[in-house]
Amino acid sequence: MHRARFVDPTGAVRRGRWEGDQVTFADRRYAVDEVDLLAPAEPTKVVCVGLNYRDHIEEGDRETPDRPSLFLKPPNAVAGPGDVIELPRGKDRVEHECELGVVVGEQCRNVAAEDAMSVVAGYTCVNDVSNRDDQRSERNWVRGKAFDGAAPIGPVVASLDRVPDDATIETRVNGETRQRSSIDELLFDVPTLVEEITRYMTLEPGDVISTGTTSGVAPLEDGDEVEIEIEGVGTLANPVRREP
Amino acid sequence: MHRARFVDPTGAVRRGRWEGDQVTFADRRYAVDEVDLLAPAEPTKVVCVGLNYRDHIEEGDRETPDRPSLFLKPPNAVAGPGDVIELPRGKDRVEHECELGVVVGEQCRNVAAEDAMSVVAGYTCVNDVSNRDDQRSERNWVRGKAFDGAAPIGPVVASLDRVPDDATIETRVNGETRQRSSIDELLFDVPTLVEEITRYMTLEPGDVISTGTTSGVAPLEDGDEVEIEIEGVGTLANPVRREP
Repeated sequence: MHRARFVDPTGAVRRGRWEGDQVTFADRRYAVDEVDLLAPAEPTKVVCVGLNYRDHIEEGDRETPDRPSLFLKPPNAVAGPGDVIELPRGKDRVEHECELGVVVGEQCRNVAAEDAMSVVAGYTCVNDVSNRDDQRSERNWVRGKAFDGAAPIGPVVASLDRVPDDATIETRVNGETRQRSSIDELLFDVPTLVEEITRYMTLEPGDVISTGTTSGVAPLEDGDEVEIEIEGVGTLANPVRREP
Repeated sequence: MHRARFVDPTGAVRRGRWEGDQVTFADRRYAVDEVDLLAPAEPTKVVCVGLNYRDHIEEGDRETPDRPSLFLKPPNAVAGPGDVIELPRGKDRVEHECELGVVVGEQCRNVAAEDAMSVVAGYTCVNDVSNRDDQRSERNWVRGKAFDGAAPIGPVVASLDRVPDDATIETRVNGETRQRSSIDELLFDVPTLVEEITRYMTLEPGDVISTGTTSGVAPLEDGDEVEIEIEGVGTLANPVRREP
């Protein structure tokens, strides 16, 4: 199943299903073009993982971590499909990072890896938009990773049965492929991440774990259209504009 | 004015005033002992500042930053007055840090320092509880600072007129003073912090900026009672227990 969140033509916010080129709520059916798609989940936090693909570790000349490298994006960072990604004023290098997003389905804590998939509602696409100008000089990546719009998610939450274990994940900018890998290349897999994160913190329904990016991260420019596609989930597309 | 949030004797959650040893909502008045005090704000994020008192920088043998050093605590970290601070399993060194909390009153972005106090609802006490075992080895302080209960706040939001510019701030553990300073010792003051943070992110009503701690940070132990007091705000008291 593909779950979407959208504003229907009357202005009501709905959580419904996405089937083909239509979204449904109750007995109403709309063309996707007729509605305003919203972020498919409303996380209280996005728990992000750095350095979780071998090729991305190599491109940054970094060491492989011995446990997941975590950082946080707060709700102000979340954006939906079609929302404008604003490049913060005065920043030269703001990059895309395609990531598999794990959407939490229930409040949970201290979940063992073998039970982890039972607390997962499904998968979504995340663009871990990163302001390198500041990230390089910060101990904690707040200016670098937590600015408004730095976490577009969507277009849907896909149930696990819809996403192959080796689903492809890619970034395209203006139609050109920039990053491409498979979610089975994750160094720390989803159950391991759920166990490790919930050892420290309660996850809430709608919270997102963003599992890290592959090689090929590169700058976004004013006027670009960036797309993150995961096989079985769909395509998250956002226009890029410089903050006025 | 001192604003509190509490569960009244019927079980309803109320936002009311705290006067003397009573809290009020509408035409009802209760002894503080009769109600269950909650965190006085419901932040979507706590934006924390490191290294913002000279004596704390010196005790850690750190360098004075040239701009505010920021990190984040998500909503799962927030706790209220009287809530138990659980020391995470297997961690040896979990420390208190008394901090002035700035509670945001309205949604805001790109606020100039000279306008900053107009978006502030008031001040509260924050205990920036810190798990040093993990903090030392993390790039981003997630295990170290964002675990459940790592951000007790309260007991009230005090309006700015109730808090002197040179208000004392202190931590007591089992009645013994461990940290003591004045909020006029902040290296980056509140208007500077609001300007810098809102350059990057939207703040929401109830969001908290925690402005950093003074010297004297020290470990908490199972069975301790930790109190943070700020002159004009009041005392935030929490029992400490080891996670079962």
